[in-house]
Amino acid sequence: MAYVSLSRLRVPAEHADQLVTAFRHRAGLVDAWDGFLGLEVWHSDRDPGELIMVTRWRDRDTFRAYMRSDDHQASHARIDPELDAVIQLERLEHVRTYEVVAR
Amino acid sequence: MAYVSLSRLRVPAEHADQLVTAFRHRAGLVDAWDGFLGLEVWHSDRDPGELIMVTRWRDRDTFRAYMRSDDHQASHARIDPELDAVIQLERLEHVRTYEVVAR
Repeated sequence: MAYVSLSRLRVPAEHADQLVTAFRHRAGLVDAWDGFLGLEVWHSDRDPGELIMVTRWRDRDTFRAYMRSDDHQASHARIDPELDAVIQLERLEHVRTYEVVAR
Repeated sequence: MAYVSLSRLRVPAEHADQLVTAFRHRAGLVDAWDGFLGLEVWHSDRDPGELIMVTRWRDRDTFRAYMRSDDHQASHARIDPELDAVIQLERLEHVRTYEVVAR
């Protein structure tokens, strides 16, 4: 039905808004990719330092093709270096992938 | 923008399909609730015993109203007792909630 990638990000709580703003102003390179169905950023309402990035794909192959692409690298390279440094310092990132099996 | 509830379920791998089927034949009581925007079940492609149930709501209040409702209880009570016993034996359920902050 679809393929989902979920990345859990941990940041210092005082930088969460900055990271959300960065996502809101993202380059959008991924949007043109074949099989890309959408991206959302979720912010925990219990733990202000926890964010989840969810991307949705037609299938695993389209997800993997993007992950190997220059566009993927470019979208990361674009993050403000000061924000990136803070995120990298404290982030704990788990990428997990799922098939959507029921609605 | 929206409110998301994510429940991570762990089941014995050999019962995952049965649980997916139960979701596909769910009563659908939640669908009529004010603020309900959708439900999906995700199945890990790395760990066959891991499923995530995602429900989406207009806001936290509509989610909480449903969680306190008889319909919520009824939807759980309807699970096949044998499946329910197996799930309860091994499940590790984490419910986490999020605001959707960017797309």
